Amino acid sequence: MEGSMQCNANYVPLTPISFLERSAIVYGDKLSLVFGNDKYTWSQTHQRCIKLASSISQLGVSHHDVVAVLAHNTPATYELHFGVPMSGAILCTLNTHTDSSMVSLLLKHCDAKILFVDHQLLDIAKGALDILSKSSTKLATLVLILESDAQNSNTYVSPETLIYENLIAEGKLDFEVKKPKDEFDTISISYTSGTTATPKGVIYSHRGAYLNALSTVIINEMISSSVYLWCVPMFHCNGWCVPWSMAAQGGTNICLRNLTAKSIFEDVFKHKVTHMGGAPTILNMIINAPLEFRKPIPWKVQVMTGGAPPPPGVFAKMEELGFYVTHAYGMTETYGPASICTWKPEWSCLPQDVQAKLKARQGVLHVGMEGLDIKDPVTMKSVPADAKTIGEIMFRGNNVMKGYLNDLKGTKNAFKDGWYKTGDLGVKHPDGYIEVKDRSKDIIIFGEDIYISTIELESVIYNHPAVFEVAVVGRPDEYWGETPCAFVKLKEGYNATEEEIMQLCQKSLPHVMAPQTVVFGDLPKTSTGKTQKYVLREKTKAMGSLSKIKCISKETFFNVK
Amino acid sequence: MEGSMQCNANYVPLTPISFLERSAIVYGDKLSLVFGNDKYTWSQTHQRCIKLASSISQLGVSHHDVVAVLAHNTPATYELHFGVPMSGAILCTLNTHTDSSMVSLLLKHCDAKILFVDHQLLDIAKGALDILSKSSTKLATLVLILESDAQNSNTYVSPETLIYENLIAEGKLDFEVKKPKDEFDTISISYTSGTTATPKGVIYSHRGAYLNALSTVIINEMISSSVYLWCVPMFHCNGWCVPWSMAAQGGTNICLRNLTAKSIFEDVFKHKVTHMGGAPTILNMIINAPLEFRKPIPWKVQVMTGGAPPPPGVFAKMEELGFYVTHAYGMTETYGPASICTWKPEWSCLPQDVQAKLKARQGVLHVGMEGLDIKDPVTMKSVPADAKTIGEIMFRGNNVMKGYLNDLKGTKNAFKDGWYKTGDLGVKHPDGYIEVKDRSKDIIIFGEDIYISTIELESVIYNHPAVFEVAVVGRPDEYWGETPCAFVKLKEGYNATEEEIMQLCQKSLPHVMAPQTVVFGDLPKTSTGKTQKYVLREKTKAMGSLSKIKCISKETFFNVK
Repeated sequence: MEGSMQCNANYVPLTPISFLERSAIVYGDKLSLVFGNDKYTWSQTHQRCIKLASSISQLGVSHHDVVAVLAHNTPATYELHFGVPMSGAILCTLNTHTDSSMVSLLLKHCDAKILFVDHQLLDIAKGALDILSKSSTKLATLVLILESDAQNSNTYVSPETLIYENLIAEGKLDFEVKKPKDEFDTISISYTSGTTATPKGVIYSHRGAYLNALSTVIINEMISSSVYLWCVPMFHCNGWCVPWSMAAQGGTNICLRNLTAKSIFEDVFKHKVTHMGGAPTILNMIINAPLEFRKPIPWKVQVMTGGAPPPPGVFAKMEELGFYVTHAYGMTETYGPASICTWKPEWSCLPQDVQAKLKARQGVLHVGMEGLDIKDPVTMKSVPADAKTIGEIMFRGNNVMKGYLNDLKGTKNAFKDGWYKTGDLGVKHPDGYIEVKDRSKDIIIFGEDIYISTIELESVIYNHPAVFEVAVVGRPDEYWGETPCAFVKLKEGYNATEEEIMQLCQKSLPHVMAPQTVVFGDLPKTSTGKTQKYVLREKTKAMGSLSKIKCISKETFFNVK
Repeated sequence: MEGSMQCNANYVPLTPISFLERSAIVYGDKLSLVFGNDKYTWSQTHQRCIKLASSISQLGVSHHDVVAVLAHNTPATYELHFGVPMSGAILCTLNTHTDSSMVSLLLKHCDAKILFVDHQLLDIAKGALDILSKSSTKLATLVLILESDAQNSNTYVSPETLIYENLIAEGKLDFEVKKPKDEFDTISISYTSGTTATPKGVIYSHRGAYLNALSTVIINEMISSSVYLWCVPMFHCNGWCVPWSMAAQGGTNICLRNLTAKSIFEDVFKHKVTHMGGAPTILNMIINAPLEFRKPIPWKVQVMTGGAPPPPGVFAKMEELGFYVTHAYGMTETYGPASICTWKPEWSCLPQDVQAKLKARQGVLHVGMEGLDIKDPVTMKSVPADAKTIGEIMFRGNNVMKGYLNDLKGTKNAFKDGWYKTGDLGVKHPDGYIEVKDRSKDIIIFGEDIYISTIELESVIYNHPAVFEVAVVGRPDEYWGETPCAFVKLKEGYNATEEEIMQLCQKSLPHVMAPQTVVFGDLPKTSTGKTQKYVLREKTKAMGSLSKIKCISKETFFNVK
C-alpha cells in the first residue's frame, strides 16, 4: 500500500522479554516473586535477569546455544525464563524427576553449553556429566543454584564450581539485551515428559511464547493484582507459559519447592493466591488433604487443570473449598493448554453430575489458537458434531510448536496436511465442545468393530467411593484382540472387589465395555502426574490372553467371566 | 534450528477476524450487540459478517480495495469492522462530522469502491458523490444503512439504491473468508480528525489490530462478561480497536446513536455497563448531567479517557458517580491509546488534588508497545527523568501505524531515526511516567528562552469555578514573539472577568506565564471533541500584537497590562 513502510518504529519482533521490560517500569515496586523469605520486585527481577544474561554471555555462550536447567520452581528457574533468552541463548528446562542417564542423553541431544542445577538435584547432574565424560562428549558448564537460607548448607561446593548468585552479582547491568531479530527464532526446548517412552525435544518460538502468554492472561482473566501459586512445574511446557504471562500483567508469583496439601493451603492463605494450575493429582491432593489444613478459602481461587480430565466429583469438592476449576487440554507441542472448557453461566443451574460431565470435556479453542477440529486423519474430513463419531483431534495456529529438535521427519509427520495431529481421539459435541475419548494408542479395539474408550471406562470406575485412581488399558487377547483391564488404586482404609468394579461398569455401560480384568495397586506416573499407560500395557502383556478358545461367542465370553 | 519448519499448522498471520470466528464457537449464544430493540448473538454476528463479506465481494471489490463507511455507532458499523476485512478489502471509516466537500476529497484520496452510509448522513454522502461526478471521478457504489425501527421511514430510497440489510440477506454463508496472507497487510485506513487542518490517511495492519485488540483487553481488564458502551466513535482509530477487543473476549457491545447524558445513564443502568471510553467532553457531559439522570451507579464502570488530560476535579466527581477513569494517551498513528496512566494502589491514600495531578499524566507504555521515550528530536538522546526537561514524545512498536496513505515522504519523516515522533512535547517523571506539556506547535515561546506550556496554563484556569472549558494559544507579539491568550467558555449561569482569570494564573504560576489576553465564548471543536487550536490561532493573528513598543522590559510589560 503506497505510503507505508516497515521499520524499527512500527515492527518489533514479538518476544516475552518485552513484558519484563515493561513491568520493570509499570510495576517496578510491585512484588514479582516470593519464595519463603525471599522477595523480589519487578524492577529487581528485571535487573537480575539482565545481569544473569550478561554472565551467561560471558561464559562464552553464542547466539542460539542451548542452556539447560534442572531445577524446581524457585525464583532462579523463573529468572532463567528471561535471563537465558535475553542472552540470545535457548532455554531447555529438564524434568526434575529424570535420572542421570536420561539427563546425559538429553544434554547431548540438545548440545547444552551450560547446565544450571538446583542444589537438591546436584547428584543427578553430576551423574549425568560423569556419563558424558566417559563418552568423551564435551561437558556442559555446571552452575549451582543455592538458596539464601540454610537449607543448602550441606552442599559441598568445590572452588571451581560456578554459583548462580555469583553470576548475578558479577553480571553487568549495562549488558545489551539480545532480542530476537526474527520472532520465529527459538526461545526454548521442552522434552515431552512422555506417556510414551522416548522424550522428544519440542521447540518453541519467541512469537509463540509471546502470543500464548497474552492468551493465557485473557483466558485466565488475570489482572495486575493476580497472585499465582506455582504448582505446575516450570519445566513442563515452560510452566504453560505462565512465567511470561505473569510478567505481561505484572502479577505476583509464589514459588514453592515442596508440593504438599499443607504447603498449598498455607501459601494460598498467606499470599492471597488468586490463580494456580496443576494436574488432577494436585486437585486430588487438595480435596483429600488432612482436615487440619483443609480450610475453605473465603475468596475465589481460579485453578486451571489439564493432563487428564478430572474425575467427576472433583469439581464440586474443589468448589466447596473455594477453588474454581477450569479444565483445559493441550500438550507440550501446543505450549500447554490449547483448548479450554469455557464455562457457560447457564450451566450452573444444571444438576451437579451433568455439570461435572460438561466440565470434564476438553472444550473450545484457546484465544491464541486458530483451529481446533476433529478429523478423519486419512481423508482430513471433519467429523460431524454429533458427540458420537470419533476422529483425531487436531490443532492449527501460532501456539503449535516449531517442530521436534533434530527430528525433521517427526516434525513433518506431525504437521502433515497443515494441521498438528495430536494422536488423541475424540468427538465433537453439537455445541462445538470437543471431548477426548482416548489416545489413539490407548483406545481398546474389541473384536473388529467395537472401540472402547478407556477414559469413559475410567470415569465410570471413579464413581466407586473406594477408588482413588484408575487407569484402563487393553489386555492382549488371542481371540478378541484386546479386552479392557482396569488398574485401580484404592483410597487408604477403603476396600473394593474386582466384582464390584465390573458390576459398576456393567450397570452404566454396554456389557462389552466392562473390564474383564481388575488389578489393585499403585499406578506408575510421570513426573507431571500423568499415568504411564505404556508401563501398564507391558504388565498386561505379561499377563497373557484371557480367552484361549478360538471360536468363543461374545455371549459365552461374558458368561464365562 | 534443525527439526523445525514453518507451515500452516504452526504459523497463521495474525488478524482480528480470528477473534470473531472463535467467539462464534465459544460464545455463540451470548449477546454480541445491543442497539435499542435490536439484539444479536456472537453466532449471528459471525454469520452476518460472512454474508456481508460475500456481498461486498459480489460487488466486484478486489483484494485490498478500499470500502468507506460514513456511519454512527450502530451494529452495521461494528459488523463492517469484520465484514470488510473478511472480503479481503480495506475498511475506511469516515468522520461523521465531515461535510460533503471533505468526504469527496477523502473518497478520492483513498480511491474507495463502496461507500456505506447511515440514513442520517445520506445527504452528506450524496453531496460528496455529486462533487465527485462533476470532476468525472469514478463514483463509489452507495450502500444505505437503514434501521429496523421507524426512525428511517422518511428516507427516500430509489429502486437502484443498495440497502445494507439486503446485502446481508443475499450474502452467502459458505463464502470463503479472505484472511490476510501477510499479517502486515492493511486492514484499515483512518483519517486523522485533525487538530491540524489537513487529514492524513493512517494505515493499520491486521497484525497491529490483532495485537492492539489483545493489549486493550488486558489493559482494561475486560473479561467475557464485560459490557462495553460505545461512546468513542468507531470511526476514530477504529474505536481504539475495541470492536476487535470485544470479539476477542466475547463481551457485549452496547451501541447508541445519540450521545447525551440521559442516554448514557440509561444505557449504563439498563445493560449493566462495565466499560466505556470517551474524550473529556463525555466526562464533562456525565458530571454536569441534569440531576434527574445523574444517579450514582452501584457497580464499577471503568472509563478510559484520552484526547486531552481531563481537568482536575473531573476524576473525583466521576468516581462519586461510580465511573473509574483511567487516563490514556495516544493518537490515530498509534491505534488509539499507546500509553496509560496505570494507577498504583498506594496513590489512593494521597490527597485528592495530588491524585488528580498523578492521574492527569500520560503514564507508561501500553502492553502492545515496545518503546515510549522522551527524546531530543535532533540528538535522539533521552531526556533525564527529572519532571523538568522537555523533549519530544516518541513511540516504537507493533502498534505504530504502517504509514500515511499516498504520503511516503510524510511516513518517512514520522519514522525518522526508528521512532514515531508524535510532535508532542513532554517530560519524564522520576517514576517513569510521562506527562505531555504541549503539542510542539502549541507551546508558547515567550522571548527567546521561556517555554510556556498551554496545557499547564489551562489546568490552572480550570480551577476557576465558573470555567467550563478553556484553551490557551500563543498570540503573535511584535516584541515577545508570542504571549499567552486564553479562550474561555463559562458554565451556564456563571460569570468571571478577564482580571480574575489572569490573577488566578499569577497566583499559582510565574507571572510571565499568565495569559495577557482572555476571550470568552464557545471553543471550536473537532468531531472527536478536541479543541481546534489552529482555529484559535487564526483568531489571535487577527487580533494583532499586544506590545507595540520595541524596547519594553519584562517588568514594564507586565505593569502595563
